[in-house]
Amino acid sequence: MAHLMSTSCSIKISSSYRPCGQPLNQDRTVLPNSFTIKTSKSPFKRLVSKGQRAGRSCLVLATAAPVSKEVSANPRSGSDRSPNDSSKPQRVMVIGGDGYCGWATALHLSNKGYKVAIVDSLVRRLFDHQLGLDSLTPISSIHNRLRCWKAITGKTIELYIGDICDFEFLSETFNSFEPDVVVHFGEQRSAPYSMIDRSRAVFTQKNNVIGTLNVLFAIKEFREECHLVKLGTMGEYGTPNIDIEEGYITISHNGRTDTLPYPKQASSFYHLSKVHDSNNIAFTCKAWGIRATDLNQGVVYGVKTDETSMHEQLCNRLDYDGVFGTALNRFCVQAAVGHPLTVYGKGGQTRGYLDIRDTVQCVELAIANPAKPGEFRVFNQFTEQFSVNELAALVTKAGQKLGLDVQTISVPNPRVEAEEHYYNAKHTKLIELGLKPHLLSDSLLDSLLNFAIEFKDRVDTKQIMPSVSWKKIGVKPQTVPAN
Amino acid sequence: MAHLMSTSCSIKISSSYRPCGQPLNQDRTVLPNSFTIKTSKSPFKRLVSKGQRAGRSCLVLATAAPVSKEVSANPRSGSDRSPNDSSKPQRVMVIGGDGYCGWATALHLSNKGYKVAIVDSLVRRLFDHQLGLDSLTPISSIHNRLRCWKAITGKTIELYIGDICDFEFLSETFNSFEPDVVVHFGEQRSAPYSMIDRSRAVFTQKNNVIGTLNVLFAIKEFREECHLVKLGTMGEYGTPNIDIEEGYITISHNGRTDTLPYPKQASSFYHLSKVHDSNNIAFTCKAWGIRATDLNQGVVYGVKTDETSMHEQLCNRLDYDGVFGTALNRFCVQAAVGHPLTVYGKGGQTRGYLDIRDTVQCVELAIANPAKPGEFRVFNQFTEQFSVNELAALVTKAGQKLGLDVQTISVPNPRVEAEEHYYNAKHTKLIELGLKPHLLSDSLLDSLLNFAIEFKDRVDTKQIMPSVSWKKIGVKPQTVPAN
Repeated sequence: MAHLMSTSCSIKISSSYRPCGQPLNQDRTVLPNSFTIKTSKSPFKRLVSKGQRAGRSCLVLATAAPVSKEVSANPRSGSDRSPNDSSKPQRVMVIGGDGYCGWATALHLSNKGYKVAIVDSLVRRLFDHQLGLDSLTPISSIHNRLRCWKAITGKTIELYIGDICDFEFLSETFNSFEPDVVVHFGEQRSAPYSMIDRSRAVFTQKNNVIGTLNVLFAIKEFREECHLVKLGTMGEYGTPNIDIEEGYITISHNGRTDTLPYPKQASSFYHLSKVHDSNNIAFTCKAWGIRATDLNQGVVYGVKTDETSMHEQLCNRLDYDGVFGTALNRFCVQAAVGHPLTVYGKGGQTRGYLDIRDTVQCVELAIANPAKPGEFRVFNQFTEQFSVNELAALVTKAGQKLGLDVQTISVPNPRVEAEEHYYNAKHTKLIELGLKPHLLSDSLLDSLLNFAIEFKDRVDTKQIMPSVSWKKIGVKPQTVPAN
Repeated sequence: MAHLMSTSCSIKISSSYRPCGQPLNQDRTVLPNSFTIKTSKSPFKRLVSKGQRAGRSCLVLATAAPVSKEVSANPRSGSDRSPNDSSKPQRVMVIGGDGYCGWATALHLSNKGYKVAIVDSLVRRLFDHQLGLDSLTPISSIHNRLRCWKAITGKTIELYIGDICDFEFLSETFNSFEPDVVVHFGEQRSAPYSMIDRSRAVFTQKNNVIGTLNVLFAIKEFREECHLVKLGTMGEYGTPNIDIEEGYITISHNGRTDTLPYPKQASSFYHLSKVHDSNNIAFTCKAWGIRATDLNQGVVYGVKTDETSMHEQLCNRLDYDGVFGTALNRFCVQAAVGHPLTVYGKGGQTRGYLDIRDTVQCVELAIANPAKPGEFRVFNQFTEQFSVNELAALVTKAGQKLGLDVQTISVPNPRVEAEEHYYNAKHTKLIELGLKPHLLSDSLLDSLLNFAIEFKDRVDTKQIMPSVSWKKIGVKPQTVPAN
């Protein structure tokens, strides 16, 4: 698969900040003037980057770079707390920690006192290059992100760059980092991407299923007490005509009763890959005693968390394009640039949504309250449910408050999905663990809208419309976006 | 993956019989004395066999070989009937047509007047070599099998040797053969095989899921009216405490009702791969209008069908080992060689069973009564259900009639499964289509037992005991059987 990273390496970034070359504000604090890149202990056959062999340890000197004062005001809030009141912080491996949810989560957990390592192939950045897409927000390299984090908070996040489908690489990361918890975001996460062409459909399922299988084997072999926190999706359930429960449903049938996995009706090769994962994980919990939490996440919106707001180099990505953009984020960008909000079909499609600040909170709660050995626990991770039409109306109303003229158009639905349907999904388990939701209020929309307005000059309006059709997917590789 | 065939080629065997070098009986009929191997029309980059380039067409002369009289007595029963009373026979591609169920099915459909092509990578034969296993029955090469079939019946079964995970190869087969129906047996089909080590677990899921995805894409792209008849397994359902329905269950919940996919609880990486397939196929039926029948088959027993009995070169394989052997076949072989019947654990494990003569009948019925465009139809394909203890008792009783001293022992269960449980699975849909079951009677056992006795000198008793543990599976590749 050309889409799959073929090289793997591991880097521990154990020191501080390097300037990113961008213009800096005048009023900054002074940071350490050196940083270290260390490889993990075992010998590596692969390279850190093309043409540069990874030595056992190397020290690179760099010019000190100041960080703005407003950031230093609250650089380490809660950072000295040890999770679970234990003196030894738990070691959390965040797979896919360079991505949208993964990056915010890695910083949040690091800030909360967990010892964090990011494992990522960085293939998500390659997808942008291949499809001619870009984040609305400018994002730094993972190396600069981690140096900045170290500089601001003094906290080290280890970095292992490689593909978890490569079991040799994954074994290295497990034996080097020795995680107590694995938070697994490391999958191809776009439904439209999985529906571009045959090779991307196959890539999505192979990448996601084999990567997760490898994680399960690594836990069994190397860290049997490790708690797997796996990101699933509410899209696994589809839109049944009955209430959606959290993972399981009790069925009475012909005079007998059993509690069984909730029936799944996924509607893209991506969503299906998550169903496959759920089934595989459930089996290993039963057969091997793996402890796992499956977070069936809704549609995430927003870009800022406490940690990513600390410095521009920590800024999270925001996707608004037809492949990786999700409904609410895309609507806000459309409103900001004066593009009509694009409602697919009738707009009655209803889904669960949550603020990215709740994503990081939910993962933290799952870690702090782990599944028992052998338990396959499923939480529905969202806070509110909306139809697409309701979202469009909310964005229109918020846009008007900012003086924007927001129009809405219906475009032919590129997906195969019910456009008017019953939807009532339970989501109480994370609330019971202590989740305090950030609700989608007008003020939040203002904040998200203002953010979109700030970066509206970066918007490529050609990327806004849906470019992938569920029905037109073919076997011919698509080397450029379809629109 | 070392286990995956890396070469692909297509061969049409369009003429007659070549001797296999085995001693032949005196009284035989005379057969044509030449045969032709043709490649398909398009150019191939790969080789038929190592060191031999596949030309566009080559004629090979061979010595005539006689076939025994008892075979020629009924060589073409029903063979001139056209399926569905149409003048043009339907074209059926049997993927995995060199395997246990696939071979019997390919011959049966050919005998019934369908135009048949076998697509097979022959990797199942490689597994035997790699694991040091062998069929109880001696089986001919696929080439000799097909030459023999041609010689006896005059019917040509086309042969495409290659891996359906290679989409270029699969496209070739579709465009060359132009199937009206695809019967898909072409998967790694052993639960223990999938639990040998990590690489085989990964291979099983990758091979099965990607192969099936490729078949779905090929149908969409090249033969959109083609009916997919896919072999699933009753093991997808697990052992729920309520009745098992055929694919779907109507659930009333909180005052609302919907008919949803029956919840699955598979218990090996193999069984899980079939669940993944089912979910993928269901989606493509909905999104693309694929017409599909999922045959959730029970445990198959027996070796003879009308067609495989016609000549020793057509003989089917019979697996009795701890990896590929299934309960009833293995018990009969154990009884024949005086080995105690090995009941795993308490022996209350109950499953659906069927005679291989019913397998071929069920596939024929599914073809003759196709799914509608967009329909994902699920049939539970078995005829009776038994616990392992019940099977052991039946084999003991039948063995005693033949003068065998049959003992039964309980061995530690290598699997993770309930050993005492409720089990009641529906299986009426194929009966409604006209299935006339061969039931597991004493006479059938005698026949199967007698068959085992005939070949008992070929039994390798070291292969009988379970060699794969569900709990002990590790990441280290196992290059020899575990026992």
